[in-house]
Amino acid sequence: MNDIQVGLIGFGNIGAGVVRLLQDNADVIRSKVGTGIVLKRIADLDITSDRGVVVDPGLLTTSVDDIFNDPEISVVIELIGGYEPAKTFVLKAIEKGKHIVTANKALLALHGSEIYAAAVRKGVEVQFEASVGGGIPVLTAIKSNLAANYFSSVFGIMNGTCNYILTRMTQEGAAFSDVLKVAQELGYAEPDPTFDVEGVDTAHKLAVLISLCFGTNIDFSDIHTEGITNISGMDVKYAAEFGYRIKLLAIGKLVDGKIEARVHPTMIPLDSPLADIHGVFNAIRLTGDFVGPVMFSGRGAGQNPTASAIVGDLIGLSRSMRVGAGRRMSPLGFMDEAIVTIPVKPMADVFSKYMLRFSALDKPGVLGGIAGALGLYGISIESMVQTSHDVADSTPVAIVIMTHEAREGSIQEALSEIDQLDIICEKTSFIRIEENLE
Amino acid sequence: MNDIQVGLIGFGNIGAGVVRLLQDNADVIRSKVGTGIVLKRIADLDITSDRGVVVDPGLLTTSVDDIFNDPEISVVIELIGGYEPAKTFVLKAIEKGKHIVTANKALLALHGSEIYAAAVRKGVEVQFEASVGGGIPVLTAIKSNLAANYFSSVFGIMNGTCNYILTRMTQEGAAFSDVLKVAQELGYAEPDPTFDVEGVDTAHKLAVLISLCFGTNIDFSDIHTEGITNISGMDVKYAAEFGYRIKLLAIGKLVDGKIEARVHPTMIPLDSPLADIHGVFNAIRLTGDFVGPVMFSGRGAGQNPTASAIVGDLIGLSRSMRVGAGRRMSPLGFMDEAIVTIPVKPMADVFSKYMLRFSALDKPGVLGGIAGALGLYGISIESMVQTSHDVADSTPVAIVIMTHEAREGSIQEALSEIDQLDIICEKTSFIRIEENLE
Repeated sequence: MNDIQVGLIGFGNIGAGVVRLLQDNADVIRSKVGTGIVLKRIADLDITSDRGVVVDPGLLTTSVDDIFNDPEISVVIELIGGYEPAKTFVLKAIEKGKHIVTANKALLALHGSEIYAAAVRKGVEVQFEASVGGGIPVLTAIKSNLAANYFSSVFGIMNGTCNYILTRMTQEGAAFSDVLKVAQELGYAEPDPTFDVEGVDTAHKLAVLISLCFGTNIDFSDIHTEGITNISGMDVKYAAEFGYRIKLLAIGKLVDGKIEARVHPTMIPLDSPLADIHGVFNAIRLTGDFVGPVMFSGRGAGQNPTASAIVGDLIGLSRSMRVGAGRRMSPLGFMDEAIVTIPVKPMADVFSKYMLRFSALDKPGVLGGIAGALGLYGISIESMVQTSHDVADSTPVAIVIMTHEAREGSIQEALSEIDQLDIICEKTSFIRIEENLE
Repeated sequence: MNDIQVGLIGFGNIGAGVVRLLQDNADVIRSKVGTGIVLKRIADLDITSDRGVVVDPGLLTTSVDDIFNDPEISVVIELIGGYEPAKTFVLKAIEKGKHIVTANKALLALHGSEIYAAAVRKGVEVQFEASVGGGIPVLTAIKSNLAANYFSSVFGIMNGTCNYILTRMTQEGAAFSDVLKVAQELGYAEPDPTFDVEGVDTAHKLAVLISLCFGTNIDFSDIHTEGITNISGMDVKYAAEFGYRIKLLAIGKLVDGKIEARVHPTMIPLDSPLADIHGVFNAIRLTGDFVGPVMFSGRGAGQNPTASAIVGDLIGLSRSMRVGAGRRMSPLGFMDEAIVTIPVKPMADVFSKYMLRFSALDKPGVLGGIAGALGLYGISIESMVQTSHDVADSTPVAIVIMTHEAREGSIQEALSEIDQLDIICEKTSFIRIEENLE
């Protein structure tokens, strides 16, 4: 059989990794597919910069139409990222009957349903293993090997930048801004780190995971998204004192026919398997009704792991093409008609335990005032730490309270009332706790 | 399209789990495949015992020929385990043009190449995700998503019985035989636990993993296999003192064109990701040249997780059949002509660090005698702990030595010499150490 001809749109860092992997490991790829996988054209606005890989200049083009209009190209890899022109290009390629491989979680999180519908109409496949967890093969596992399960939850650490920053804050007691600077110098954080540190990148990945686990196209704006920019060294320290570690978690649960979809800093017990995922590593933990809990971990980003996932998708498509199979599977693993809309639980209705850190005046009656207000909203206290001055003075002290399980809405209302008390010196910090990641 | 018709051979614990999963989750399976997956016949010698699942008695038969000769049955699930008659049945089913799904690692480890060759000749698939790690989808990941990588190593904890026993020995300082008894009472160990505790089951799984990672049919007898029956509470205690935990590891490495294939109790650092895999959980860690290290963990055995993997294989096959694709992939993921024979390194040539525990008389010069003998074989000492009596007496004392990296053959020769010294009271215990699981 002839080689599988592929077009690549986007010749950046990841694109160069794909080129190098297809070159360096051409033999092993051929030994697994039975044919070669060949990059026929590479489109990018910049076709002159050195990417550290050698390519025949004849492959390079600044016109994506050279890819769309090449009938020999059966698969298009989209690696430009972001919403546009990625979306236009992907839809155009589908329209031309080409299979899609992409790592673009932002695109899938916001425009996935439109893209999947177009692919279904044209009978082509859309593969996106690289969009979540870099080289970790979790998406295919959900779509295939674990497909017989009803899933109840999917959790994970899915952003290496945030996990690197939180790991160093924990290990060194360093402040967020200092660690961010180091992470930027080391290349672990972008010059503009907003999408990472504000949790948006993690929420994009959660949207993809939720769609695969629960067979639904979740509205991205329904995902409660908080980043790590408000986490202080004090939070990390008190969390450790109570036996927890702070991680930026993506959390998806299906409970009583409603989805919980949230990304926020989360305290997890030190002996939880996710607590030991350090630095730029990612981990994703799923629970299915028959398989029970399963966890996947590895390098969640970077040129080489991401290229591994992209070429893995190419190999899967090539194997199907080789035996003459067209579209073997719907983009989400579910048949298209089985995709349903599942209501998302409002954040106010989510139940959780909380660590509340109050900054209060060191006066008699302060604790009573706080506890009283919490009690009015039905929030009960599990344990507490109060610092106090040796000699009474006017600087604030920290009061840290661990609550029993409480409704998020009640916590929000109680805190907004407490924060108006004269004895409270700054906005109260609160961090949600997940004891049992299942 | 018509439902996919399946025949099941072996209606034991796992078989009953498959029946229940196909019943309970029929809707979600249909929503992922587009057709139903239906058990047409179930063959077992015993068709009267209650398995805790309701089946139409008309499905049950004591004759496997009712499955082989049914032209509507396109997939046969083999769940009788062991070498025979499983091998005969699988080859017969292949001969009849039926795809195979099996959880039988013993069969694949010893007769895999014969079975794969027969499947290739007939153009049918052999799927065996359930054979390693229960519900953990590691085999498909190696064959598909990670297929673009050259793998350098595969490590893992793959036997829940052994891991449960070692975990309890570590947590409670309990003796092997006591914990084994408890494990048998709890159903975590078989009445005859030999295959588990002697490492044979783990070696079967390692054989399967090595074949998929390195594209070779390893001769099962080339795998160095040791179990955990000789591990004492003292070993566990000293390992902890030096900062290690003892796990029964399967280790496969490809170094300089030779395979290391070994199963033995192994000391791994406490902060190693595998050190936190407790009880009946399994974990498998792979390293590929592009993806880097990837780890998978979950319940490695049991009715439900194993059924999840088996039905996952059925779903994959059904999707291919639905689009008219025949054999999409060779059994090992490699093209058949790409399967090579790779020499296996003799155990004597393996390099490792060791913990040596000597039982010696508490006499002057003992340590010098031991150290001298080790030195003669080029084995150098990294650190040492010696207990001694307050008042000299004739009962033996423990001398525990951590070596630098040494050749296994040299260690064996040195120990057989040392064990003949008058000052040595019992056979010296040695445990291999893996510092870096990559």
